[in-house]
Amino acid sequence: MRSELIPSADERLNAQIDFTIEIDRMTSVLRRNLVTDGSRNENDAEHSWHIAVMALYFSEYCVEKPDVSHSAEMLIVHDLIEIYAGDTFAYDVEGQKGKADRERLAADRLYAILPEDQGARLRSLWEEFEECATPESKYANCLDRIQPFIHNMLTRGHTWRTPQTRPVRAQVEKRNDVVREFMPEVYDWLMKNMDAAVERGWLLEG
Amino acid sequence: MRSELIPSADERLNAQIDFTIEIDRMTSVLRRNLVTDGSRNENDAEHSWHIAVMALYFSEYCVEKPDVSHSAEMLIVHDLIEIYAGDTFAYDVEGQKGKADRERLAADRLYAILPEDQGARLRSLWEEFEECATPESKYANCLDRIQPFIHNMLTRGHTWRTPQTRPVRAQVEKRNDVVREFMPEVYDWLMKNMDAAVERGWLLEG
Repeated sequence: MRSELIPSADERLNAQIDFTIEIDRMTSVLRRNLVTDGSRNENDAEHSWHIAVMALYFSEYCVEKPDVSHSAEMLIVHDLIEIYAGDTFAYDVEGQKGKADRERLAADRLYAILPEDQGARLRSLWEEFEECATPESKYANCLDRIQPFIHNMLTRGHTWRTPQTRPVRAQVEKRNDVVREFMPEVYDWLMKNMDAAVERGWLLEG
Repeated sequence: MRSELIPSADERLNAQIDFTIEIDRMTSVLRRNLVTDGSRNENDAEHSWHIAVMALYFSEYCVEKPDVSHSAEMLIVHDLIEIYAGDTFAYDVEGQKGKADRERLAADRLYAILPEDQGARLRSLWEEFEECATPESKYANCLDRIQPFIHNMLTRGHTWRTPQTRPVRAQVEKRNDVVREFMPEVYDWLMKNMDAAVERGWLLEG
């Protein structure tokens, strides 16, 4: 685990540096969606960054006011477990099986790298995101859906047009349930987008 | 500016969506350093994300306790102006000329996309980072130096070995002055790394 390229420090600092190095692997976890210019797939580091910035200026649409900083912290770590568990596409029915177990094992492995107190804290941010019960995690989950939705529209429905896992509109609506409940004005705009996407043949009716 | 691929919303939401789309260009602003596996150059979105995560577990080394969430917010936006101003390499003397003006003009252009109140708020985070006067911005500036330093060590001094802008050790030390002052224990570790880097021929003595 310790890279021979860097000198050792004390145990605690070593652990923090090792974790820093390990999480850089997020830059090679590729997502299904493209970056907005359509040139290549987005990776998890880019996605996490993009939604964390969004957290700073979309909160006015939330039905319950979240602590924005807390949502942003959650967003920058919410996908870290994918370093070991991989990115599971939202509409991939087979891939969804066993996802929760896979991700829990990944969290066990990843957060054990950090000093115990810090690993527990970062893990709790991820768990809060997954439970989606607090205003902060609801807001974070909304952004996690709105961002790839926008990317999809700008790349002419790229992930919606993927063979095999091609969703129909009702599935995309269901996936955005949390936006409908927690950010209804933004959901209205998503619905207008879905109308356009269906009309343009990017998204299947149904 | 408005993409014809997405339906329009009200003026304020339009502005927020336009900004969201514009900042995705951070994924194609390339930095001099490589990702830690050495496979390619890192981009600004990845860099910003990486140091924002680091903010969550390195604050114990600060001589004055920062509000970590505030530092993390600062870090996710601190390089946004590079969308228009480009990334200026720390040891590029020519490139440093006019950098401040270039970045101010970039900020004028970028933050005007957002609704005024939000543009002003995000801009003030960037300005706070640049002024480097608060504990939060000192911590953020430290991380902005420590992260590429670690990347450099893991890629055998990649940016230190760039012809033309090749720094000597004293320049790297100076660049890390803020770490020496604000995170002295981490600076001690950086110095051990510099010893190793000089010994291995990655960094010039002097």
